[in-house]
Amino acid sequence: MRPAEIVVLSGGIGGVKLVQGFAETVDPGTLWVFVNTGDDFDHLGLRVCPDLDTTLYTLSGLADPERGWGRRDETWQFIEAVKGLGGPDWFRLGDRDLALNVLRSDALRSGRSLSEFIDAIRRRLAIDARVLPMSDDDVRTRVDTQEGRLSFQEYFVGRQCRPVVERIVFAGAASARPQPELLEKLASPQTRAVIIAPSNPYLSIDPILALPGVPAALRGCPAPVLAVSPIVGGDSVKGPTAKIMRELSIPVSAAAVAAHYGDWLDGFVLDRRDADRSEGIDVPVRVCDTLMHTLDVKRQLARELLAFADELGRP
Amino acid sequence: MRPAEIVVLSGGIGGVKLVQGFAETVDPGTLWVFVNTGDDFDHLGLRVCPDLDTTLYTLSGLADPERGWGRRDETWQFIEAVKGLGGPDWFRLGDRDLALNVLRSDALRSGRSLSEFIDAIRRRLAIDARVLPMSDDDVRTRVDTQEGRLSFQEYFVGRQCRPVVERIVFAGAASARPQPELLEKLASPQTRAVIIAPSNPYLSIDPILALPGVPAALRGCPAPVLAVSPIVGGDSVKGPTAKIMRELSIPVSAAAVAAHYGDWLDGFVLDRRDADRSEGIDVPVRVCDTLMHTLDVKRQLARELLAFADELGRP
Repeated sequence: MRPAEIVVLSGGIGGVKLVQGFAETVDPGTLWVFVNTGDDFDHLGLRVCPDLDTTLYTLSGLADPERGWGRRDETWQFIEAVKGLGGPDWFRLGDRDLALNVLRSDALRSGRSLSEFIDAIRRRLAIDARVLPMSDDDVRTRVDTQEGRLSFQEYFVGRQCRPVVERIVFAGAASARPQPELLEKLASPQTRAVIIAPSNPYLSIDPILALPGVPAALRGCPAPVLAVSPIVGGDSVKGPTAKIMRELSIPVSAAAVAAHYGDWLDGFVLDRRDADRSEGIDVPVRVCDTLMHTLDVKRQLARELLAFADELGRP
Repeated sequence: MRPAEIVVLSGGIGGVKLVQGFAETVDPGTLWVFVNTGDDFDHLGLRVCPDLDTTLYTLSGLADPERGWGRRDETWQFIEAVKGLGGPDWFRLGDRDLALNVLRSDALRSGRSLSEFIDAIRRRLAIDARVLPMSDDDVRTRVDTQEGRLSFQEYFVGRQCRPVVERIVFAGAASARPQPELLEKLASPQTRAVIIAPSNPYLSIDPILALPGVPAALRGCPAPVLAVSPIVGGDSVKGPTAKIMRELSIPVSAAAVAAHYGDWLDGFVLDRRDADRSEGIDVPVRVCDTLMHTLDVKRQLARELLAFADELGRP
């Protein structure tokens, strides 16, 4: 029998679209999603986990389809009142979204782990796919810019990615323990494919790769490891990937992303708009439609990734 | 020159109406309000201070005039979302009200004192009257009932005051330090009058009186100490005062409240509906309209209290 389980390493918005494609394509009980927590931060005394929450909201149908983050039918009375009391309003926490943040902060302070909390909410929201933080230990992405070191959210939301990036640091990663299920699934003969979602490689995937043991586990993984290019037509689909690549003097190309991921990569998916740009990619390449504007495209990409993995995985 | 400062000891809704009367009658910069914190509690990881917030909201015009607590034009998206995630929704935190609770909890965790935080918000809301917690130390009212010991909010909100009260305990009071300005103002020759607001004597005023040094300071106070009866026409104006008195086998009368306050009381204000019920009150009595349904009545009561105090204070 074919191994049944799918492992996805993912960040926020872009990656979650592919996760949704898998959840709609395979038995979601066989889907394991390990989510970047480098963007997490403490704000107003609350633990905010943007990528995890985007994943949960998307898979449960609560996500706002326009904004890409937060909850649908959101209201903003709380943050306006914070402003009225002289508090900071640069990070827009919606009234409904606040519930998950308040409950999480309370749970963490009571000694529950982030993964326990997320798993309880996942079950409450009737999500069958397993969604877990990459680690229960704090990893905090810091962006060294020409204007100094910024926390991820200062850079991303506060400064709208404007400062020129010189280096990206994952504080705490060196001593953080990867989520045990992540290492377990990467080593398991029951894993059919490991998918690196088309999230920002430098901001969303690198924090996961910075966890001790993860690169080695990918290298030793019996299942094929595939990545989907976040670069389409020489630019990022959304967000600052291309801008950061230029600032770090990396050519803005799918090939550069494939090279960045390194020797554990078994296959790479290019967008069909880049069908003629596979030069320099030294793993097997598959060309797909990766611009996941509809659920159909998300499902189709998930199916093609599985077919690609099954071909590569054949002994 | 006549001493200028007015000191009010107060709980929530009922007492705050009188505070508002004073703020509209005297120079609010001369008004010192010390507020019960026995009702405060930690909920969802947030520090909730019902009486302090009612005071701040009322004096700044943000209070909901119908409900009597919380903010006007309130919305309830947050608490509905908490419920949707399986969290507790018995204590209704409004979206706007949440701002003050979140900012306070963050400030306290950062090491600021409750009085520092409340004072900063007071200034932000352009309230000239000084509003301070009775203590910066935690005092927690517990209600021993026939159904066991309940926290104040479990009793008041969770159980709607239904359980029969056997005893009321102020956990932490014995070792709590009264707000330094409270003892200072009670000892000051600049204090014109000390007013015990018509709040629940057993739930709202007793926690203040349970603080070490407060009864002695009231006894030694050079200014006249007056109380306004919370019992009108043999019943409480609002809330469970009369019910609790019955359960504690105390006659439901203004005289019983005057006797409860003890030997430091210099004068007592009865409602005009109780003009013929002054028997058994062994301090001077003034009869006023104490049902503060309009701002005019609030102002009038404040004026009459000051006149009464000035008569009693004359050597």
